[in-house]
Amino acid sequence: MKIALVGIGKIARDQHVPSIAASNAWELAATCSRAGRVDGVPAFTDLDEMLESHPDIPVVSLCLPPVPRFEFAKRAILAGRHVMLEKPPGATLSECHALEDMARKAGVCLFASWHSREGARADAARDWLADKVITRAHITWREDVRKWHPGQDWVFDPGGMGVFDPGINALSLMTKILPQPVHLKSATLEFPDNRQTPIAAQLDFTDGVSADFDWRQTGPQTWDIEVWTEAGKLHLTDGGEHMMIDGVPAGQDPSLIGEYPRLYAQMADLVAQSKTDMDLSPLRHVADAFMLGRRVPVDAFHF
Amino acid sequence: MKIALVGIGKIARDQHVPSIAASNAWELAATCSRAGRVDGVPAFTDLDEMLESHPDIPVVSLCLPPVPRFEFAKRAILAGRHVMLEKPPGATLSECHALEDMARKAGVCLFASWHSREGARADAARDWLADKVITRAHITWREDVRKWHPGQDWVFDPGGMGVFDPGINALSLMTKILPQPVHLKSATLEFPDNRQTPIAAQLDFTDGVSADFDWRQTGPQTWDIEVWTEAGKLHLTDGGEHMMIDGVPAGQDPSLIGEYPRLYAQMADLVAQSKTDMDLSPLRHVADAFMLGRRVPVDAFHF
Repeated sequence: MKIALVGIGKIARDQHVPSIAASNAWELAATCSRAGRVDGVPAFTDLDEMLESHPDIPVVSLCLPPVPRFEFAKRAILAGRHVMLEKPPGATLSECHALEDMARKAGVCLFASWHSREGARADAARDWLADKVITRAHITWREDVRKWHPGQDWVFDPGGMGVFDPGINALSLMTKILPQPVHLKSATLEFPDNRQTPIAAQLDFTDGVSADFDWRQTGPQTWDIEVWTEAGKLHLTDGGEHMMIDGVPAGQDPSLIGEYPRLYAQMADLVAQSKTDMDLSPLRHVADAFMLGRRVPVDAFHF
Repeated sequence: MKIALVGIGKIARDQHVPSIAASNAWELAATCSRAGRVDGVPAFTDLDEMLESHPDIPVVSLCLPPVPRFEFAKRAILAGRHVMLEKPPGATLSECHALEDMARKAGVCLFASWHSREGARADAARDWLADKVITRAHITWREDVRKWHPGQDWVFDPGGMGVFDPGINALSLMTKILPQPVHLKSATLEFPDNRQTPIAAQLDFTDGVSADFDWRQTGPQTWDIEVWTEAGKLHLTDGGEHMMIDGVPAGQDPSLIGEYPRLYAQMADLVAQSKTDMDLSPLRHVADAFMLGRRVPVDAFHF
């Protein structure tokens, strides 16, 4: 099936383009971006022009930043195309609900993708936890913003989400593997003096679930979820790539290798089944944290 | 039908107790509150004790502040009671979704009440706008926090929502009367230096809709929505009590007088029809504003 990519930046080049190229299900038939392009693929800078000149492309995948994404998604949906959204699916919850309504009315599929739900052991962790009694859980998601977002000031602008840009990956994995939903009881958000979004956050959920997000970690990076149950401790590391039960490696390798190849396989399934998958629970937790969190000022941050 | 009131504070005394007393549908059969009570009505301080000793009370109305509300709602639902929630229905969106799930599983009704949707001309405004082409709209919601929340520091604590405590009333009215949903494009939130929630906010929605919330207005108070359409201008004043079309008074008086009597009549209908009404769109807009808004520091605020 032909697919178009909109927003040819770092994440498109690192993940989307190679995943589509490696898939038997997809053919990259066009790109649309202000500056980026992919060798050998028709390149557009105007979305409407691309949609009009390529009625043969039924699916559009959007990998631009969250703030401009709504307008592009809206135009693709109204042009009758199925749409896959990078995470987070929008800059606001309300616009995501609006997109879902539009997609239903237009009869197209919409997929809010959450790549961290596709860590190699995420399914195994969910399955192992399904019948366990959980006593507590802790998420540690600490990385170096200078390494992953070099010079990308937009992550600290309003709507850029700050440390919740990686943190929402943890929350997407958490909401996948925990057998019962939790909600936030309190949060502390650390705002650099010169920035509009937090650089660190500590979250305290119901049911003994807590999270520690920090964007100032140099050296080894940490993307871990630990879950203590009455039947032992589950430890997911490297964003769900590895899993241990009481210190012993567990879980099988999935048939497809890599988070993004699995996302594109899911999108192919959704289109084949005419289904929409628009789970907003990770974004809801982020919005809850901004609404409920205590703001603490910390040192100014410069790239 | 027997009903219990939980949280006997200012809003309960000012609105809930007289509305129940004036209704033929309801009988106030118990109260539960740390300190407050109502003359002649059995008073409890422990919710579980009240629920156990009064299996004859099928409905519980919660009018305590948003942060503790979830635990009370959960216990009432799990005890098989229908629950009516003061606005906002919770401190987080995720807990509201959790309550909705619980209520569905328990087979009870849940009502997220929004009293400003019951302004005397709110239905008339919605009906008049239903077939109009809207060119722009502006909300002005300016009141004096010292008058309406004297000494209530919790409104400035995390989760207290600040100026969105009244602002969510405007948003509940907006989401009722506009024929198409809008979403936030940008927002400015004015945080007093010594407080955790904003004292003023300017919101810029799609479709030319904007809002100006301010809690520092002394003298006359303003709760207005103006909507410009191709067929004239609608002006709702006093929180929906009065309405003008191009400057001419319009709209009939509703059969029941007062926002809260109309809410309790709706709750009676929901219970009779075994329905839930849990529209979270006003709270979603508030969460979106906290997530997307630009924070601006302003002078410290002291009651």
